[in-house]
Amino acid sequence: MQTDGPGQDLVADVFARECTSRAAFEDVTSKWASLVLLALGEGPVRFNALRRRVDGVSEKMLSQTLQALERDGMLTRDVVTAIPPRVEYELTPLGTAVAGHLRGLADLLEASVPQVETARRNHVQR
Amino acid sequence: MQTDGPGQDLVADVFARECTSRAAFEDVTSKWASLVLLALGEGPVRFNALRRRVDGVSEKMLSQTLQALERDGMLTRDVVTAIPPRVEYELTPLGTAVAGHLRGLADLLEASVPQVETARRNHVQR
Repeated sequence: MQTDGPGQDLVADVFARECTSRAAFEDVTSKWASLVLLALGEGPVRFNALRRRVDGVSEKMLSQTLQALERDGMLTRDVVTAIPPRVEYELTPLGTAVAGHLRGLADLLEASVPQVETARRNHVQR
Repeated sequence: MQTDGPGQDLVADVFARECTSRAAFEDVTSKWASLVLLALGEGPVRFNALRRRVDGVSEKMLSQTLQALERDGMLTRDVVTAIPPRVEYELTPLGTAVAGHLRGLADLLEASVPQVETARRNHVQR
């Protein structure tokens, strides 16, 4: 256990603004990242296939999202030696675990569409 | 089962841009909503206490987030008759289930701080 430097004894807390876990939580739940993680949860995939799967994402946003997730250790960018060579994105074990939680959430919401639509119809704007 | 109208036989899919499940998925994973759901997963809470718990949120963003989550059926806004009367926010069963998935994700990321920090240090900007 490290004891040098301040904050070494702090427990990670997603509620704390300075905590790495909060930054990582925001990175994996950001608008496109969560869908990218879900898509990669289905297996390694190339950039263009990923772009088709994540309906609505721009090339620029997809690039930025992939870089941020690679930086956090959620995925790897692999150059596959073939003719022509191709680049594939693949989840790390940590990314796979994160994607599993997001898939559970997505399954729940897909199963809850009637409930959400009923709530929306009954909602009175204040 | 309803069969009138187009799209009634479609399966909900968070990848589909027009699907209610995608909108709900984006609503619950948005920057502040996920932290609000985590906080409410700890029990019913009043606006100001919630604002303190969700470190960094503005009054305006918290209001908007609560309205969006109420609209989707994730929480209820209850006026408690007391002197003075107070307003509390509480998760619905659906919101509780959603918060459970987000808590699992948060636990994982809190436990993965060393891994994320190592990945960030080793990351080479392209």
